[in-house]
Amino acid sequence: MSDKHLSTQFDNELSGISSRVLEMGGLVEAQVAQAVQALAAFDGELAAQVLREEERVNQMEVEIDRDLSTIIARRQPTARDLRLLIAVSKAIANLERVGDEAARIARAVDKLIASGLPSRLRLPVGDLRFESELAIASLRRALDAFARLDTQQALEVLKHDDQIDAEFDGLLRKLVTYMMEDPRTISSSIDLVFVAKAIERVGDHAKNLAEAVIYVVKGTDVRHHTVQAVEDAVK
Amino acid sequence: MSDKHLSTQFDNELSGISSRVLEMGGLVEAQVAQAVQALAAFDGELAAQVLREEERVNQMEVEIDRDLSTIIARRQPTARDLRLLIAVSKAIANLERVGDEAARIARAVDKLIASGLPSRLRLPVGDLRFESELAIASLRRALDAFARLDTQQALEVLKHDDQIDAEFDGLLRKLVTYMMEDPRTISSSIDLVFVAKAIERVGDHAKNLAEAVIYVVKGTDVRHHTVQAVEDAVK
Repeated sequence: MSDKHLSTQFDNELSGISSRVLEMGGLVEAQVAQAVQALAAFDGELAAQVLREEERVNQMEVEIDRDLSTIIARRQPTARDLRLLIAVSKAIANLERVGDEAARIARAVDKLIASGLPSRLRLPVGDLRFESELAIASLRRALDAFARLDTQQALEVLKHDDQIDAEFDGLLRKLVTYMMEDPRTISSSIDLVFVAKAIERVGDHAKNLAEAVIYVVKGTDVRHHTVQAVEDAVK
Repeated sequence: MSDKHLSTQFDNELSGISSRVLEMGGLVEAQVAQAVQALAAFDGELAAQVLREEERVNQMEVEIDRDLSTIIARRQPTARDLRLLIAVSKAIANLERVGDEAARIARAVDKLIASGLPSRLRLPVGDLRFESELAIASLRRALDAFARLDTQQALEVLKHDDQIDAEFDGLLRKLVTYMMEDPRTISSSIDLVFVAKAIERVGDHAKNLAEAVIYVVKGTDVRHHTVQAVEDAVK
């Protein structure tokens, strides 16, 4: 068994599928940014656009998955090629879930527009924006790592995940304080809690993607490892 | 290309891997039940046990995934066998996430034990128990469907998912009312909101598992389809 490809055609198929994963990644990254922008600007039309694009993301997942099965059945890949295809399957499941999180944020925006956001909740919305910038940066870095099969970049994603979690915890505490001070803000604050949670999960999906990159390159499954153990694995 | 297996050995490998998926499924199902029981009984030791088992579930996911890659590389399966292996890969990712939800509930129990649950929140805890019974029943049915590759059972899981979502919505509304009536319950109520959300997601994972069963048997990817469209597909 050789790690070399039998044909340039197969190489093309692999790079074709990788480009589509990156395209899908770019799309969901934009969706998250738009959903948070819709929240900050209270823009119902932008939220609606995020929801419309969900369909397209779902479609991409189904199509890429179908092509993956066809390639595996026809090319019978082994070693790194097989790992790449398995990683693609996991990557697109994660990206689809990023799209779901964006849709959750967009639906929360709709609810908040309908109920009216109490003016004192403007401040936590600013914090949410910061949390989303961290998560989007993490996702972009994971996609970059995937594009170049760069384990160092992947490792950086894993290292920074704690920061997003800490941001979420701080935001949650702050929202609880607002709710206690003024119970009229409770309902809207809960919506913001779910937005904060959705953003935190975008960070988790980026982390999963980064772990898939390490699996392709190193053949080591580093899920559920500590960051230190992963550092040793990618050395 | 034939759908027949080349060897009884391969048959054994496939049925071996299916049994391990079911074993993993039984384990995470028990974890969710224990986590909710820990909440109802305010039992910190039981919550700790759920957290200890998380490690074992993670380990099972990694091992089954590794064996899957080996089987695909060595047996080069096609058609239904390949679909089964791909479905197993998706199934265990979902089951691992069910384990994560159980761990989330267990950690919320720890927090609630530390902070003390206001007595007026006893009632929503009863509702959470009901929500968890629906979700666990759904998960069990999805695992049954997987064991027997039974698309009708799988369809039943998809049909009942709305019920769990409705239960979650009702619970959320109720918790918001409690928070408004007595702001001292806010922090604990938020913990219960996350528990309710975790349970609702167990239902989502059961749904994903059911969709994987339909994919194996029918070769149709029914994700993102309406229940009506899925009914037509499994006819």
